[in-house]
Amino acid sequence: MLLLIPGPVTTRPEVRQALTRDIAPWDNDFRVFMARLLMRIQRLAGGSDSEHVTLPLQGCGHFVTEAALRTFVPPGGRILVPATGAYGNRMIRLAREAGRIAVPLPVGLTARTDPAAVARALAEDPSLSHVGLVYSETGSGIVHDVRAVGATVRAAGRRMIIDAVSAFGALPLDLSAMPEVDAAVFTANKCLEALPGIGFAVARIDRLLESGGNAGSWSFDLADIYTSALNSGPGSFRFTPPVQIIAALDVALDVLAAEGQGARLARYAENMRTLYDGVAELGLTPWLPASLQGPVIVNVHAPGDPAWNLHAFVDSLKSRGFLISNFHSTPTPTFRVGCIGAITPADMAGAVRAIDAALREIGITHREAIQA
Amino acid sequence: MLLLIPGPVTTRPEVRQALTRDIAPWDNDFRVFMARLLMRIQRLAGGSDSEHVTLPLQGCGHFVTEAALRTFVPPGGRILVPATGAYGNRMIRLAREAGRIAVPLPVGLTARTDPAAVARALAEDPSLSHVGLVYSETGSGIVHDVRAVGATVRAAGRRMIIDAVSAFGALPLDLSAMPEVDAAVFTANKCLEALPGIGFAVARIDRLLESGGNAGSWSFDLADIYTSALNSGPGSFRFTPPVQIIAALDVALDVLAAEGQGARLARYAENMRTLYDGVAELGLTPWLPASLQGPVIVNVHAPGDPAWNLHAFVDSLKSRGFLISNFHSTPTPTFRVGCIGAITPADMAGAVRAIDAALREIGITHREAIQA
Repeated sequence: MLLLIPGPVTTRPEVRQALTRDIAPWDNDFRVFMARLLMRIQRLAGGSDSEHVTLPLQGCGHFVTEAALRTFVPPGGRILVPATGAYGNRMIRLAREAGRIAVPLPVGLTARTDPAAVARALAEDPSLSHVGLVYSETGSGIVHDVRAVGATVRAAGRRMIIDAVSAFGALPLDLSAMPEVDAAVFTANKCLEALPGIGFAVARIDRLLESGGNAGSWSFDLADIYTSALNSGPGSFRFTPPVQIIAALDVALDVLAAEGQGARLARYAENMRTLYDGVAELGLTPWLPASLQGPVIVNVHAPGDPAWNLHAFVDSLKSRGFLISNFHSTPTPTFRVGCIGAITPADMAGAVRAIDAALREIGITHREAIQA
Repeated sequence: MLLLIPGPVTTRPEVRQALTRDIAPWDNDFRVFMARLLMRIQRLAGGSDSEHVTLPLQGCGHFVTEAALRTFVPPGGRILVPATGAYGNRMIRLAREAGRIAVPLPVGLTARTDPAAVARALAEDPSLSHVGLVYSETGSGIVHDVRAVGATVRAAGRRMIIDAVSAFGALPLDLSAMPEVDAAVFTANKCLEALPGIGFAVARIDRLLESGGNAGSWSFDLADIYTSALNSGPGSFRFTPPVQIIAALDVALDVLAAEGQGARLARYAENMRTLYDGVAELGLTPWLPASLQGPVIVNVHAPGDPAWNLHAFVDSLKSRGFLISNFHSTPTPTFRVGCIGAITPADMAGAVRAIDAALREIGITHREAIQA
């Protein structure tokens, strides 16, 4: 069974096999191992050893995103969030429920965030201290230009938080060239091709030192995670981490190093292209024009046939060895196919054939979208 | 290598083997599996199907404890917390950083929480809406009487939150007989003998319905987890869960069902007794008198010999196949030995022999504590 959900992703057997040991986080050897793993991640982020630190946080992408918002945006502080789709909306809700003022910048699900629009919004509202941007928006499939938006934020003298959850490990990130970024956050179970249970923030040390007391949550205080590790030593944890998941991530980083980050991105892009072109040839309508389609996830309009039933379609695909999400995150009906994980263009060609067969099985004759 | 740290614990190979599958949480079959697992946990907690619900939360014990405090104690609300040691203090800090008023009740590390003292504190301060109690206090080794304290809380018309992290699965809990309890919280990686990465709250449905909007954190809002699962179906998650860890927990619940909860507690008690009596025979001084010693963890005073060095001792024990924590959580130097996990009294007898050998190796001749 291949997971095309997208995330958790299909992983390699040697990554999962690394899960099967009992490991103590309160062990000096584990601490050394963990410190090394954090440095490996920091290098992938283009972090500077003197300016950045990589902080682990138990849990999922929502948690580490909330932690970054709480730590760097003070209570009552204001953050501009390009409303790019489900994950832009996630950042807005996380900020609001944490008592921060999230100001949406209209973008939508069929456009890239316009740096000029960000510049205008920041110029019009000097009280906005931050911009929060989703790098790869799962809700649409669009990759937003964090470098270009970051340059605008830097020019305006503001700060930035990047949700790199579904991007990190494949899409390029060079934080040493982006001093405006307080933190980029992500998890192990997307383009790093490891398992869910742990998130990370690569954050600026100077900003962490300025942000103590902001969080209003001990659990989600990145500044406290930083100072605790200063006191207890690199690689130490405040609270029990998912040690097996971390051990598997280290193997996944070996796999990534062997493949190369550029080659991984090229493989994902080819996965996407195979899927995108394949479903178009089947008569289906991708959510995005090819010019906007990113390599991580392809959203596809539901066929305009009254026989359409997402759950029946998902079940039929599953019987053919391909698991896709049992929900959609677009405003109109779609199905979504992840292109990341330990999968190849040949797998995606198989997925296209399975999609064709599943559509026949559930009785779809009109494949064009009603709304496109 | 046996983990006696205590938690994460030593697990059985079949539990860890269940980690090695790729699993999609956004899959209808997983949802059914998860719903069943939540019901299994709820039965272990003595929850009532009509009054309780079991809510999963990604992460560690701190996270689910903070979630319960945020959800049930409103912002600025007041909670009495018996200061029983490191984990009583944890609840106090979690509450305070979340903007709740935590009022410590002096208890200390060598006494059980006195229900009469709780009753007096509640009578004297009608603004205390809650009592937060640690069931098994790792900081001392004492098991606190949640039933007796709960009866006091109930009589005073107040509410209760139980930190059952290092207790659940072995120590008895019957929430259907404790209507004063808003939630009991715990994780998979203690007496359930599974792996770290997921926590749970068994909570009252009526109180969840009253507590919407309290949390000030989307991630940690148990009321939102409840209503989301109502909308999306039992066993659904809001955010990506650590699916492998959950799959392993289900196998661990099979193991617990086969052993029986009473037999598990008896095994842990025998583990503890073997260790406690064994270290006393070695000339060491346990932190607690036998009458107060619980079955989960034994804290032992550091020997009063100037050659004492916790790290050297830990390393020597590790070379003998026993891993204990590389820190202590008592105010004076101790070492701590967990008695829980997939270990037997014979293992503990081996640990006692290893402790003897390690003390000799690091040159300890005076084994009596300086402070006892």
